[in-house]
Amino acid sequence: MTTGEDAEKQPPHGTTLDDYTDRYSAALRGMTPSEIRALFSVANRPEVVSLAGGMPYVEALPLQSIAALVSEVVSAQGSVALQYGSGQGLPELREQICEVMDLEGIAASADDIVVTTGSQQALDMVSRVFLDPGDVVLAEGPSYVGALGTFQAAQAEVVHVAMDHDGLIPSELKATLERLRRDGRRAKFLYTVPNFHNPAGVTLTESRRDEVMALAEAYDLLVVEDNPYGLLGFEASPGRALRSRSQSRVIYLGSFSKTFAAGLRVGWVLAPHAVRDKLTMVSEAQVLSPSNLTQKVVSEYLLKYPWREQIKVFRDVYQERRDAMLHALELHMPAGITWTRPTGGFYIWLTLPEGWDAKAMVPRALAHKVAYVPGIGFYADGDGVRQMRLSYCYPPPERIAEGIRRLAGVIGEESELRETFGPMLGSGSAANRTSGRSRSRGTETPDPGTV
Amino acid sequence: MTTGEDAEKQPPHGTTLDDYTDRYSAALRGMTPSEIRALFSVANRPEVVSLAGGMPYVEALPLQSIAALVSEVVSAQGSVALQYGSGQGLPELREQICEVMDLEGIAASADDIVVTTGSQQALDMVSRVFLDPGDVVLAEGPSYVGALGTFQAAQAEVVHVAMDHDGLIPSELKATLERLRRDGRRAKFLYTVPNFHNPAGVTLTESRRDEVMALAEAYDLLVVEDNPYGLLGFEASPGRALRSRSQSRVIYLGSFSKTFAAGLRVGWVLAPHAVRDKLTMVSEAQVLSPSNLTQKVVSEYLLKYPWREQIKVFRDVYQERRDAMLHALELHMPAGITWTRPTGGFYIWLTLPEGWDAKAMVPRALAHKVAYVPGIGFYADGDGVRQMRLSYCYPPPERIAEGIRRLAGVIGEESELRETFGPMLGSGSAANRTSGRSRSRGTETPDPGTV
Repeated sequence: MTTGEDAEKQPPHGTTLDDYTDRYSAALRGMTPSEIRALFSVANRPEVVSLAGGMPYVEALPLQSIAALVSEVVSAQGSVALQYGSGQGLPELREQICEVMDLEGIAASADDIVVTTGSQQALDMVSRVFLDPGDVVLAEGPSYVGALGTFQAAQAEVVHVAMDHDGLIPSELKATLERLRRDGRRAKFLYTVPNFHNPAGVTLTESRRDEVMALAEAYDLLVVEDNPYGLLGFEASPGRALRSRSQSRVIYLGSFSKTFAAGLRVGWVLAPHAVRDKLTMVSEAQVLSPSNLTQKVVSEYLLKYPWREQIKVFRDVYQERRDAMLHALELHMPAGITWTRPTGGFYIWLTLPEGWDAKAMVPRALAHKVAYVPGIGFYADGDGVRQMRLSYCYPPPERIAEGIRRLAGVIGEESELRETFGPMLGSGSAANRTSGRSRSRGTETPDPGTV
Repeated sequence: MTTGEDAEKQPPHGTTLDDYTDRYSAALRGMTPSEIRALFSVANRPEVVSLAGGMPYVEALPLQSIAALVSEVVSAQGSVALQYGSGQGLPELREQICEVMDLEGIAASADDIVVTTGSQQALDMVSRVFLDPGDVVLAEGPSYVGALGTFQAAQAEVVHVAMDHDGLIPSELKATLERLRRDGRRAKFLYTVPNFHNPAGVTLTESRRDEVMALAEAYDLLVVEDNPYGLLGFEASPGRALRSRSQSRVIYLGSFSKTFAAGLRVGWVLAPHAVRDKLTMVSEAQVLSPSNLTQKVVSEYLLKYPWREQIKVFRDVYQERRDAMLHALELHMPAGITWTRPTGGFYIWLTLPEGWDAKAMVPRALAHKVAYVPGIGFYADGDGVRQMRLSYCYPPPERIAEGIRRLAGVIGEESELRETFGPMLGSGSAANRTSGRSRSRGTETPDPGTV
């Protein structure tokens, strides 16, 4: 990922001014580059331990088996695999996706599925179908940065709903819905990642799932359930999908990026029939059809490879890494630093003491050769200043341990600076510089990092 | 492509009413399914000769060589090919794309390229970067249906500019620009397919390219040059790309769908540096990154396979099919029917006599087991009623001949009906039913079908 960024260092043609500014769309002018993206150019240098990116550990895949399978797809089914496909996606793959979803308690018809170019396209399609500028979207605080970017591109207003160690807090959701109702507004949908949340690392409990769906009924709320990590539970499976509780209220997003391979860009969206129709139309306007080749590869893999066993391999890899990170955190972190303890997925959410600024500490962390993502990027309202996301998915356990050791050093330094010179000279002085995009602050959010 | 459509015949869940209507975005409510899409379910039945779809003849590809190459990509470079990539696309592929564009006279930096999920995504990205609801886009009349769909999704107003056998008419472009200026409006860009136009089958002459770009300078107009067919010239290459005449005014769209394989969904956009930056940001919000696997496959193919020779193979295939179609048209079509004579690409544009309605004739054509696309889908303003697009890219020459023979039968029948009962009982009676989307009619368009 660094290479594209490195290329940016070439001088632009002619001038650094943007001659096209007065031609851009209003939606574009509202878009800002992701906080995460700006980090990648340095974070991916080999000497840096990157706890920043959320790249799955594809090295755990059986490359030779996949090579053979891909070769077979092209030689035996090349006239389909290399051709344009249907906007909705290959029927046989959609049938197989139903089997995958069955593992999480979802009963669905293949006809209600649209295959997408990764889950990100599904998010963009959902935004195009439902969002007008100024519309309200509810999302956990913090929330997945790629979703926030898409809602921002649609010029929607994100209202965050607080989480704790049991995930989204139903009483906070209810309070937010009540407040919107009093204001004469309606949320177009609730965007939620119930399982092994990115970035918070928490999971919605079974009883809260019932409560959330009861509120959705009571307030006539649509729910967009994003579930890329659901099959990556370490100790146990998470609760049944929200979609298993309601067919008509839930639009469900799935992905093969974490259970198989992100480079294929194959995800899907399951939606009520009428909505599925619209999603297909939008997808055709965006990409005509998803790649038949990568769809066929996924389909053959599900057909011929023991993919459930491979998911267990992934789980074991990630569990070992989570353990390494938790162990290192216990070992190295000073008092006053807290973090979540995920039972699956890729991420730990760490909270610094009151008044600290995780974003302002990034340069020092990079000087200490460790990278993380500051929490502010996961909020639409300037919150998350003293949080950071730590990913354990990609580096091997010993690198994770070393990364946390380095991070603890950075935190120790910050602590000393603050003790010696007071917070004004520590990174905390930047705490109030970061609220540029602040708007529509939701409820006062209890901190998922503190659990 | 039929399978997805067939699946639609299953009864929807519960009700045929759409319970979500009051939640949809304004942009979505303006979108209508493509005229072409609705045809596919019947057009792809084996007994029907389909002159409708624009599917490239991927059967001419060396499947075993590609299978070996794909296998090599996964086994030797799997950790990259199966992983997330950069939003801008793989650097090595962007370098190779520069070599491909060099064949059409374009000098470019790899840094100014964004790899896309097919050219359709590039169209959507350009629309997102530049278009607000109500903005004016200029486009040839007729124009590529996928582009019209995207502009429609962006709620832009398409103003068509007339073409003749030499492509877009500069004097018509000038008149349109003048008219807009008088009205105090500005076109966000001109969308044009200069080479082997879809659907018109005509090519912009070299001198007109200079004239169009001179007008772009004079009127401060951006040009979006869409060039999927430029390397598929039969007798000679088309003129040099518009992009070779101006780096700052032209956003250039390229694709491997016709020169290699559509199923990979790999295209690209070349844009001035500042615009490229915005396009990358939009692409990340849409799909995070294009598929590394399919990008690697294209890159390896360009590196290791004699791809220029393969393009010659494609040219020979399509030239033979164009010849078969032109010959059959000469042989079977009655007087009063005219058509274009493409020197490359996939399409012939046929014009029926005054007062006829190509769309109304579709059911009869299907009963005669031949399919085409009625011209009205290629206009945003209800024009194209008596035109149709005939594709020669996919069926073998003998099927093309049979298809044209059947089509001539349909046209003969229509002629007889009209002579016997008058136009009110012929399909022409539907001519005025088709202007539902009529708005913003541009200049009076000379008919490219008459040349």
